Amino acid sequence: MLLVNTDIIDVFLHPKSVAVIGASKKLIKGGFRIATNLITNNFKGKVHLINPNAEGKLYNLEFKKSILDVEDDVEIAIFYVPNRFIPDILKDCIKKGVKGAIIEASGFEEVGEKGIELKNKIIEITENFSKIRIVGPNCMGLSTIDGDSDGEEREGFFSGFGVFNNFKRGNIAIISQSGMLNGGYLMHVMTKYPNLGFRYACSIGNKMDLSEIEFLEYLIKDNTVNVIAIYLESFKNSRKFIELCRKVRSMPNKTIILLRGGITPQGQKATLSHTGSLAENSRLIKGIIKQSGVIYANSFYELFQFARTFSIIYETGKILPKKGNVSFVAGSGGAGTITADLTMKYGLNYPILGNKAYDALVDVFPDWMPPNRFAFIDIWPAMEKAMMNQVRPDVVTTHVYKTLLSEPNIEGIFNMMFCSRQFRAMNDVDQIIDNVKHSSKPTFFWLVGEDKEVRRVSKLLGKHNLPDFPSLEEMVKNFSILVQESNNKF
Amino acid sequence: MLLVNTDIIDVFLHPKSVAVIGASKKLIKGGFRIATNLITNNFKGKVHLINPNAEGKLYNLEFKKSILDVEDDVEIAIFYVPNRFIPDILKDCIKKGVKGAIIEASGFEEVGEKGIELKNKIIEITENFSKIRIVGPNCMGLSTIDGDSDGEEREGFFSGFGVFNNFKRGNIAIISQSGMLNGGYLMHVMTKYPNLGFRYACSIGNKMDLSEIEFLEYLIKDNTVNVIAIYLESFKNSRKFIELCRKVRSMPNKTIILLRGGITPQGQKATLSHTGSLAENSRLIKGIIKQSGVIYANSFYELFQFARTFSIIYETGKILPKKGNVSFVAGSGGAGTITADLTMKYGLNYPILGNKAYDALVDVFPDWMPPNRFAFIDIWPAMEKAMMNQVRPDVVTTHVYKTLLSEPNIEGIFNMMFCSRQFRAMNDVDQIIDNVKHSSKPTFFWLVGEDKEVRRVSKLLGKHNLPDFPSLEEMVKNFSILVQESNNKF
Repeated sequence: MLLVNTDIIDVFLHPKSVAVIGASKKLIKGGFRIATNLITNNFKGKVHLINPNAEGKLYNLEFKKSILDVEDDVEIAIFYVPNRFIPDILKDCIKKGVKGAIIEASGFEEVGEKGIELKNKIIEITENFSKIRIVGPNCMGLSTIDGDSDGEEREGFFSGFGVFNNFKRGNIAIISQSGMLNGGYLMHVMTKYPNLGFRYACSIGNKMDLSEIEFLEYLIKDNTVNVIAIYLESFKNSRKFIELCRKVRSMPNKTIILLRGGITPQGQKATLSHTGSLAENSRLIKGIIKQSGVIYANSFYELFQFARTFSIIYETGKILPKKGNVSFVAGSGGAGTITADLTMKYGLNYPILGNKAYDALVDVFPDWMPPNRFAFIDIWPAMEKAMMNQVRPDVVTTHVYKTLLSEPNIEGIFNMMFCSRQFRAMNDVDQIIDNVKHSSKPTFFWLVGEDKEVRRVSKLLGKHNLPDFPSLEEMVKNFSILVQESNNKF
Repeated sequence: MLLVNTDIIDVFLHPKSVAVIGASKKLIKGGFRIATNLITNNFKGKVHLINPNAEGKLYNLEFKKSILDVEDDVEIAIFYVPNRFIPDILKDCIKKGVKGAIIEASGFEEVGEKGIELKNKIIEITENFSKIRIVGPNCMGLSTIDGDSDGEEREGFFSGFGVFNNFKRGNIAIISQSGMLNGGYLMHVMTKYPNLGFRYACSIGNKMDLSEIEFLEYLIKDNTVNVIAIYLESFKNSRKFIELCRKVRSMPNKTIILLRGGITPQGQKATLSHTGSLAENSRLIKGIIKQSGVIYANSFYELFQFARTFSIIYETGKILPKKGNVSFVAGSGGAGTITADLTMKYGLNYPILGNKAYDALVDVFPDWMPPNRFAFIDIWPAMEKAMMNQVRPDVVTTHVYKTLLSEPNIEGIFNMMFCSRQFRAMNDVDQIIDNVKHSSKPTFFWLVGEDKEVRRVSKLLGKHNLPDFPSLEEMVKNFSILVQESNNKF
């Protein structure tokens, strides 16, 4: 029975039973890590360990010599063996009725002739992938997160060899031709932002059979996913890719972010030796990106940063800004100036305040330093006035935030927080969180001050799904992609 | 006796005696912080505390009602009082023979007519600054670091009201029209990079009298300074500024990095309300920047990031790359591809390896995956081969680094480090540090993996003056400014 594409992806991402081919008891081996990831993260399907050279048990599971020795059905086989062993094992998998194979080994198109021979052999054995479907080769496996690692319902399916101990279920899915993105980099992001959740991480490698197209089709239909972050080194089917991306543009709760590697001639030399992707015309690539209407990222860092921003927006039900009208609350005129320059660079602006909002601000500012008529609020003079009048600083900030959040012409707020242990009272983060967290307008933060205090405040903000950025430029840029996306939508 | 400009700056940055006007015993007041900064950081000059309303002592120093009550000479008066009190106190300072005043209060040009009146009054009283020189107003004071805060010779002169407890003497000087840069942001950078040293931080505010020109003249002559990071919202004398910058271009051990706020119309509206700087033509500003030939930063973040990079280069005697030929050692083909695209964007390249270097690499790579002919080294296959042959991974990395560092065509190295507690042996940071620290070629790092481990490795690298960057783009960009600067030099 031939499964339609989205059905087979469902089997790959939610298998009822898997076999780890190349499972090992040796701690240094990838086959050990994969088995460990499955067992310790409460993968709910059945797990079978296959290794002709291994004896005894691991996690109370017996090693089998061959997949043919397994009595139960096996849906997915995870291959962690050198490339030369793959054809014979694939034959066994087909005999066994395995539906899909995840092949992690490298050594295919990217190494030239010998690798292409191996690929052709696999095409022959699988009768052009009609007998078994393949993810990879040269990949880091597929991951599905069902329950947070620190919760009672901890559950994850991690078929790569990375170390996955800390994770949170969320609304982001990754499709990537760089295994590192689904491995080391994902670990980095998940440990750096403990409140940031992921749903799937799909490492598609050389995409010998299944590609970004099938995964994208599946993720578009999956309601648990709001953000799809994609890294590609080639387009398998650019017409179809554009069509799928356009479909997402009519979906109010879904955003695609794309990074394309190998845009330049130097990058293309590198892709050839990486995923065996052949050079495409740079202008053609840029045309495809433009037609797809996706949010484009320029680096891994931006890809995840943008994914995080959209994840939070969807998670908290914020309204995407349409005009780019933003207010900046800061205790620094210099930061206000630089941000003003940056807002212009990224198509945003500080709007003129309505009379009601302006008058409300005048109330808390001193006569010698009235507020600006436009939406850059240097809050320092208002703080000084409060101190002189024995008024608590949070009374001022609450007043300012209420005023700005109820000003119809403002779509979001930037906030500079000065973080210092000794000055906590002046920048009471808990109170600022209370002021902004229930608003439908996105609020972004930029933190300066003592590094330790910056990290403490960042963590607190993160817990409430309020993002902070390490630079003013990133804060402005991340707001600008929201404006871009809201204007992207049909 | 009228001092020449560099002499008066020397008095401001290394005063033998200061008076804190507005010193206070109240912990929340800026005047308390300034006194605290001077005393607790072992400022070697004499300190006098002036406040007509304060009684008793602070740090065992008696409060005086007026500067005229001080018996000793006072070189510099630090004003931390509201603007309206300034003219009368300035008259006293002139009577006392004080050479310079640092005025931190705001409320001058930036607030319009009343502020301009006040300014004119000061010009009259000081006889156009011939009786006393002024830094500010609307500034965060001047700072000089003489000895590390954690050393026996801890010594600093901090005349601003920020919290300065942790600092290191180094080769960077700041000239800034944003007090926040010399305060909160400087605190941030100094606590985030404990090994990064500064020499001076000069907050020049509205530059009523002394400006970037006089400070720049001084810093050019000062041999303890290699890197001058400047933030301006206006040019006091653009012809002279260009002349000074060109002078630095003929100095092999000095680099200027500039950020100009208020380049766009929106930014100029903000500068007017900040430092009272009047709008200048955007094209004119860009012309001045271009003629000056400085390294241009686009944000506060870049300003300090670039300063850190050059600081390390000069500190460790690295050779500035001329052609932009760089090698990338990574365990990720995707990272290699993206970096290849980025190198082209920033005018760098992975050169073709010479035969000697190539052959040396072939030795440690497996037959099924030989190294590239160009200088992107995906080290993973070599690691796998080593593991199969029971060879320690550091033998491989040492061989690879030695090979690349002795390849004449390579001017610097990028390194991706995978940071995971469980895989420390595979990425032995101490051994990599040993491999690269004595080379004259800059080595930059990009870290991925578990956040906690990333921070541990980052700290270790920092201790050895090896910079790591949070994104591939920043790593590439920071290398590209080295190439720009080496081609800038006459």
